[in-house]
Amino acid sequence: MLNYEGIAASKGYAIANAYKLVHPNLSFSTMKIGNPSKQVKRLNNAIKRAVNDLNKIEEVVITNMGSASSEIFKLQATFISSPNFINEVSRFIIDSKVNAETAVSEILERRISKLKNAGNGKFVLDKIKDIDDIRKRLLAYLLNKNMSDLALIQSPVIVVSEDLTPNDIIQLSNKNVKGVIADLGTNTSHSAILTKSLNIPSIFGLNNISKNVSNDDLIIVNGMSGEVIVNPSNELVKDYSLKITKYNQTEKPLDKLKKRNAFTKDGKKIEINANISSPKEVNLIKNYMIDGIGLYRTEYLYIDSYSLPTEDEQFNVYKNILSSMNNKPVVIRTLDIGGDKQVPYLDNNDSSERNPFLGNRSIRFSLSKTIIFRTQIRALLRASIYGNLSIMFPMISELNEWYKVKKIINEEKEKLDDEGIAYKNPKLGIMVEVPSVAIMADQFAKNVDFMSIGTNDLIQYVMAADRGNPTVAALDNPLNPALLRMLERVVNVANAYKIDISLCGEMACNRYALPILIGMGFKNLSMNINSTLDVKALLSLLDYSLMQKMAEEIIKNACTVNDVIKIEQRFIKI
Amino acid sequence: MLNYEGIAASKGYAIANAYKLVHPNLSFSTMKIGNPSKQVKRLNNAIKRAVNDLNKIEEVVITNMGSASSEIFKLQATFISSPNFINEVSRFIIDSKVNAETAVSEILERRISKLKNAGNGKFVLDKIKDIDDIRKRLLAYLLNKNMSDLALIQSPVIVVSEDLTPNDIIQLSNKNVKGVIADLGTNTSHSAILTKSLNIPSIFGLNNISKNVSNDDLIIVNGMSGEVIVNPSNELVKDYSLKITKYNQTEKPLDKLKKRNAFTKDGKKIEINANISSPKEVNLIKNYMIDGIGLYRTEYLYIDSYSLPTEDEQFNVYKNILSSMNNKPVVIRTLDIGGDKQVPYLDNNDSSERNPFLGNRSIRFSLSKTIIFRTQIRALLRASIYGNLSIMFPMISELNEWYKVKKIINEEKEKLDDEGIAYKNPKLGIMVEVPSVAIMADQFAKNVDFMSIGTNDLIQYVMAADRGNPTVAALDNPLNPALLRMLERVVNVANAYKIDISLCGEMACNRYALPILIGMGFKNLSMNINSTLDVKALLSLLDYSLMQKMAEEIIKNACTVNDVIKIEQRFIKI
Repeated sequence: MLNYEGIAASKGYAIANAYKLVHPNLSFSTMKIGNPSKQVKRLNNAIKRAVNDLNKIEEVVITNMGSASSEIFKLQATFISSPNFINEVSRFIIDSKVNAETAVSEILERRISKLKNAGNGKFVLDKIKDIDDIRKRLLAYLLNKNMSDLALIQSPVIVVSEDLTPNDIIQLSNKNVKGVIADLGTNTSHSAILTKSLNIPSIFGLNNISKNVSNDDLIIVNGMSGEVIVNPSNELVKDYSLKITKYNQTEKPLDKLKKRNAFTKDGKKIEINANISSPKEVNLIKNYMIDGIGLYRTEYLYIDSYSLPTEDEQFNVYKNILSSMNNKPVVIRTLDIGGDKQVPYLDNNDSSERNPFLGNRSIRFSLSKTIIFRTQIRALLRASIYGNLSIMFPMISELNEWYKVKKIINEEKEKLDDEGIAYKNPKLGIMVEVPSVAIMADQFAKNVDFMSIGTNDLIQYVMAADRGNPTVAALDNPLNPALLRMLERVVNVANAYKIDISLCGEMACNRYALPILIGMGFKNLSMNINSTLDVKALLSLLDYSLMQKMAEEIIKNACTVNDVIKIEQRFIKI
Repeated sequence: MLNYEGIAASKGYAIANAYKLVHPNLSFSTMKIGNPSKQVKRLNNAIKRAVNDLNKIEEVVITNMGSASSEIFKLQATFISSPNFINEVSRFIIDSKVNAETAVSEILERRISKLKNAGNGKFVLDKIKDIDDIRKRLLAYLLNKNMSDLALIQSPVIVVSEDLTPNDIIQLSNKNVKGVIADLGTNTSHSAILTKSLNIPSIFGLNNISKNVSNDDLIIVNGMSGEVIVNPSNELVKDYSLKITKYNQTEKPLDKLKKRNAFTKDGKKIEINANISSPKEVNLIKNYMIDGIGLYRTEYLYIDSYSLPTEDEQFNVYKNILSSMNNKPVVIRTLDIGGDKQVPYLDNNDSSERNPFLGNRSIRFSLSKTIIFRTQIRALLRASIYGNLSIMFPMISELNEWYKVKKIINEEKEKLDDEGIAYKNPKLGIMVEVPSVAIMADQFAKNVDFMSIGTNDLIQYVMAADRGNPTVAALDNPLNPALLRMLERVVNVANAYKIDISLCGEMACNRYALPILIGMGFKNLSMNINSTLDVKALLSLLDYSLMQKMAEEIIKNACTVNDVIKIEQRFIKI
């Protein structure tokens, strides 16, 4: 029995066997080989296993954390299974007569060094990280080693590690992870915050514990005191088992938030909705008290498929979501592709577009391919009878487009009438993500049922700065006063015209932006399910009437992001 | 002697010999050749002649029409003389062992068919037209034929043609073109309008006249009656010579405008400034009564050069412009590259930018390469003592950038002080072309000396639509109410803060937009010198107080471009 003491980062108790997070040794020798087809076969086996494991991990993460977190695994699986990549590596094996390890390493390192020339912003660094993860995974499987994927653990464990990578952290959501201990880390690190919201007891800053513990050592984690006990006495095990039972009967602070609506400190109700991308997330959402789905992204129905989803396929997906939400509002957004989202089998993938973010995307694409658009509208109308549906249209930039959309919807309704097929009249609204729409908000307000602000795109058009371009992306700060003024105008107009207004960009989970949004009068926010607890927690600390004054002063006086933060710091300590 | 009658499109009389605009027969046979180096030599000679002629044409057009019209010839010359193109054709000759005609035709037709796949918007069609012009010119010179370049005519002529191409029309500005007659065309065609503003008598719709006239036939053009007399009697020649002398003593309506300031019908003075890109244009400007230079684009100093222009080179250019303008205001804009303007020897040509219009352009580039920027600032400051200089900064998107710009200017002033070099304090202002700046116009107004709206870029960010992308460019209509509202806000703010406000985008010469701009309160417009006469003519028909009411109604009620036009039609007949 050995005792350690570290920084208690997330409360609670746990007893389970150690699971050491060890990254495999991936060294190999380059070998000239005589039988390339054997190497190609080895490559294909490794790829098959990688895709299989990545899909399993995605499944676990999506169910526990939502699609925003799981996307990275989906992207990796797509990359690995793309004919382009497989052909490139196979050809390298055959041409250079080398083993599969060498070919995989060489091809992926070339991609990485190409990316390194493209700058060092977050966007590029993330991509490099992704490709490096892919490289490691394929090498591990070629060398017959395991990746320590936490999502794939099948029995209860305490995770023991030197430090956790972002990939590891997301996989902590596996229900079999009962506790986390690590050599490094503090109680404000990303892993600490996540273990808190997952209610997993965790202790960091334990120095060399990862070296001193073996797999299958029994571990007690005391997230109250910061104590870790390795191979405890039977007596201690009994003690802690009792503590665990008792602790589980008390309600956790963040769990309370799961079951509660969101209110400000002075009692103003804020509607919290979820942004989701996949039907699988609907089960996850049920564990949280939310007011509805504020953004269902239908493009993944198209992106994840090898051909256009049929009307019936779409109808079934929409119907299931609506049915499962028990008449809570569900906002489904029509196909939003182009820009940085491409559907391989559609010819929107126009490589000749010099500026795809200013190109033929979203509703522009839908209005240019009305057969695809009409199919989606029909599926949505037919599904509308199963719940409380609103349909939202992305990237609208002028009223003429809106008139065209309405005409198509009316025509499809008439056709359904003729065919005797039932539908309700869903609310019809728009994303506000093109500056022209924010400017014309009053005229739009007379014509739509609701508006939802998409800050991710809006900010890049307002600042004329591509959010994926590391050289200029820093301009796209959600606290930029120009964006804040635009949002204030839209929320005021919507309130004056008494139409629903919400905000569904990442900005809603930004802890500096949230207080300002509340102060401006936003009462309906939509975000990744994962962020709802943090947002509820922050909201419960904010005084609405004070935030109103703060927002007023920011709109009037702030010239720069720094001014915004300074004013905010006078009003709240965050 | 033969008489013809057609549509008198531009008034006046002319007598001169016929110059038939005949496009050469460019048919050739593909030949397998044994001596490729001879063909490469033929190619190089043709290229040399083409570049030489294109430069001469550019010179004539720039002097008579300004740089906006001459640019097309510069671009063609640049294309033809690029090592890329020359190498590609030479390699084709050597690899395929064919004559130069075949290689030129093959390579350029490949480019054209590639472009054809890119859509059929104006942008692409213009490019195809350019490449086809290049193909024709090179083939003509290889086949030892002349292009009938009007700009190169050395003695007085009457141009006789079936119809005029846009290229021909621009070249009509050659002073040796005394009259124009053509089989086709009406008095509202582009050629009619241009001959009017150039005061060249012209008659169109003459059916087969181009077939019935030979080169060097003597021609009388009577632009009053629409009569054309071929090989007239000596008596008639005498008559018409007298008429010409008399007519030349009377003042032409558009010539009057050249010598007059711009006023609305009810006597409101509108300042008209010129946009220019080249020092050569300064002489042209002198023939027009304008109030100053509203936009001098310095990027062509960089683009036309093979390396960075030195401080002294820049100083001399700026000094000459300022001196020649006799203390009239001259607004010089700092380097505006990136987006669709690239400088080959600078590494702003970042092909990895996915959205160059939302990328590292203009002031962003200058602030990231401060050595280049400081050199330009020093050259401008030193030149400031020679006239009435304002410095304008493009693509500013937030006040922080402006603070950085001011800091650099102050530092450079201090250095000049230390070195004992004289300078004045030029006015410092910004382009308003990023939506954020229009939104924050009040805060900018407190910090800058003047603002000038660049509508070409502003509209594409407001609508999130690349103006070079044929699929979406139609969204970038300058009459879009969202843009109009933004402009109205900026002009109101500038007037409230009493700082100079102007507009220097193409919108100022749009005959539907101009009345609205005047009504909104714009009193200072800058445009291509070429358009100033038309704009002055239109202004003289507009009632300012009526336009104010019209603009007010448009801002309040118009939802779409159609609404704008409808309201406008109620107020004026245009």
